[in-house]
Amino acid sequence: MPTTSHLYREIHEQPQVLRTLLDRQRQTIQALAADIRSRQIEYVVIAARGTSDNAGRYANYLFGAVNGLPVALATPSLYTIYKRPPRLAHALVLGISQSGKSPDIVSVLAEARKQGALTAVITNFADSDLAQEADHVIELHAGEERAVAATKTYTSELMVIALLGATLAEDPGMLAALEQVPDAVATVLGINDHVAQIAQRYRYMSDCVVIGRGYNYASAFELALKLKELTYTIAEPYSSADFLHGPLALIQHGFPVIVIAPSGVILPELQSFIQVLRQREAETIVISDDQATLDLARIPLRLAASLPEWLSPITAIVPGQLFGLYLAAARDYDPDHPRGLRKVTETR
Amino acid sequence: MPTTSHLYREIHEQPQVLRTLLDRQRQTIQALAADIRSRQIEYVVIAARGTSDNAGRYANYLFGAVNGLPVALATPSLYTIYKRPPRLAHALVLGISQSGKSPDIVSVLAEARKQGALTAVITNFADSDLAQEADHVIELHAGEERAVAATKTYTSELMVIALLGATLAEDPGMLAALEQVPDAVATVLGINDHVAQIAQRYRYMSDCVVIGRGYNYASAFELALKLKELTYTIAEPYSSADFLHGPLALIQHGFPVIVIAPSGVILPELQSFIQVLRQREAETIVISDDQATLDLARIPLRLAASLPEWLSPITAIVPGQLFGLYLAAARDYDPDHPRGLRKVTETR
Repeated sequence: MPTTSHLYREIHEQPQVLRTLLDRQRQTIQALAADIRSRQIEYVVIAARGTSDNAGRYANYLFGAVNGLPVALATPSLYTIYKRPPRLAHALVLGISQSGKSPDIVSVLAEARKQGALTAVITNFADSDLAQEADHVIELHAGEERAVAATKTYTSELMVIALLGATLAEDPGMLAALEQVPDAVATVLGINDHVAQIAQRYRYMSDCVVIGRGYNYASAFELALKLKELTYTIAEPYSSADFLHGPLALIQHGFPVIVIAPSGVILPELQSFIQVLRQREAETIVISDDQATLDLARIPLRLAASLPEWLSPITAIVPGQLFGLYLAAARDYDPDHPRGLRKVTETR
Repeated sequence: MPTTSHLYREIHEQPQVLRTLLDRQRQTIQALAADIRSRQIEYVVIAARGTSDNAGRYANYLFGAVNGLPVALATPSLYTIYKRPPRLAHALVLGISQSGKSPDIVSVLAEARKQGALTAVITNFADSDLAQEADHVIELHAGEERAVAATKTYTSELMVIALLGATLAEDPGMLAALEQVPDAVATVLGINDHVAQIAQRYRYMSDCVVIGRGYNYASAFELALKLKELTYTIAEPYSSADFLHGPLALIQHGFPVIVIAPSGVILPELQSFIQVLRQREAETIVISDDQATLDLARIPLRLAASLPEWLSPITAIVPGQLFGLYLAAARDYDPDHPRGLRKVTETR
């Protein structure tokens, strides 16, 4: 039964986890923001893997748009295998890891600290190896995550990044908007039973593409990762712009494309993209809070709550998490224990 | 006939194109290197799409390892749609585009110039819109590329990046090693007929994964893109480390995995990875110049020339280009005109 799984419980715990996080981490994040300002940080280097790397993709847009900070995603092998790390002294180096245990991510932070860079980590384990290497530790307070596929720690990581961006911008409107997020996630979770039905249609889908752009580029990567981990679907994430530079050739009649398209300035771009998909007779599954956009879809998945675009990734991933859960169940896979994966992956 | 295609001709022109480039662009690149030094550039922002973005992935490793420069891949929508570009004044902003026409890439360079950043572009068209926005224009001299799928402009872009990294490092050994590249590519092209035979085996392959790490992370992305564009295979690229953080769940008996594993310090990592794939009974196709590594493969594709690891992406992509050509032919697709694509893709 999918509803008795850890994964189901953890997906549905998200509103409460996000509320706890908002209550507890404001001061830690204010201290980090103060250090970023006083040290005149010009760019950010993020080290992360898997789901946490997708949270890093969100930071890439948020810190760029809101804080004017370019973001580089670290290349851990330069630190661990090539042993030729780049110069980081003037960067904020941010590690993101649920477990705080992956040796390659720990190595990036250790090197950054050695070079005198400002370091911070976002983790669910404040006593982890990774946390030991950082000037600032932001704890997720998500509680133990028992399903191998990360859900509540992903949205928590997004929330920390959003809170950091808003705090650094000293924008009262943004800080106030964060308070809406837990309730919005709770509202969006109302789609649970509908997604359980829709998942049946995709019992025999072997491949798909997942599209997002801008803030929701991260959502496309994370939804695709959930489908791979939980359902073994070959799910490939793309920005709508990158997809037009080559991979569009894949699309033919019935090819499934999931488009994550919440309201915002990027929406007209995605609407045009969905039209291109329709001309090529793709099967379009659209996640949106905008009715006109949903009307373009073969299968609409409605976000029942709207958030400002910069916060929309936190709600927009929820139907995808549920889709992963119920598609795994439709295929008689164990949603808590994907084949061949463990909760903590240690890579160097 | 695949051998009468533009794609075949352009793949086989690569040694000559690379020789021309080495002859003609040294001074331009020296001038750019001098500016990078005198302006004390601390990090690089790269704007590119498609194949050129894969060349940017190579730069990420090369500039990091050899020049100590962190690299951020630009997020063009921040410039074009959100209109909230990050601060770039202390960066080198590098645009890479065969055509120099994609409006989003032009926008990133225009903004960078407005902010007073050091700007450079790598393009096949010195009179393009993109070239107009740059302080330094490095021309590929690759001649017109008529096949839609880029090949000779990709290896030329890699060569420019390699030349820039070596010039900036003022390393005579590296500069000398560049001279070996055109002949090495010519030698590796000797695999042409073997790849033509092997491609038959994959006539009905619908999905695959392509793995590379470190310098050849870029090769995995580029090979996967060629397979998507030319053969409509759902080909997903990964670093071996990222693949272990979730997607490994996909692998079952017979799942095809192409591993790009030339000699170098990263090789033991990839050998271990191939062993994991063997345990899970994947079908492994291995591209390498190392016999022990090839011995681990179900289907070995031998690189007949060895280069230093930092240059190996220029030869390591060649069997993949040929594989794309011959697999397209095996499927009776036109290798010069993939469905739904044009040579110049304009995105914003």
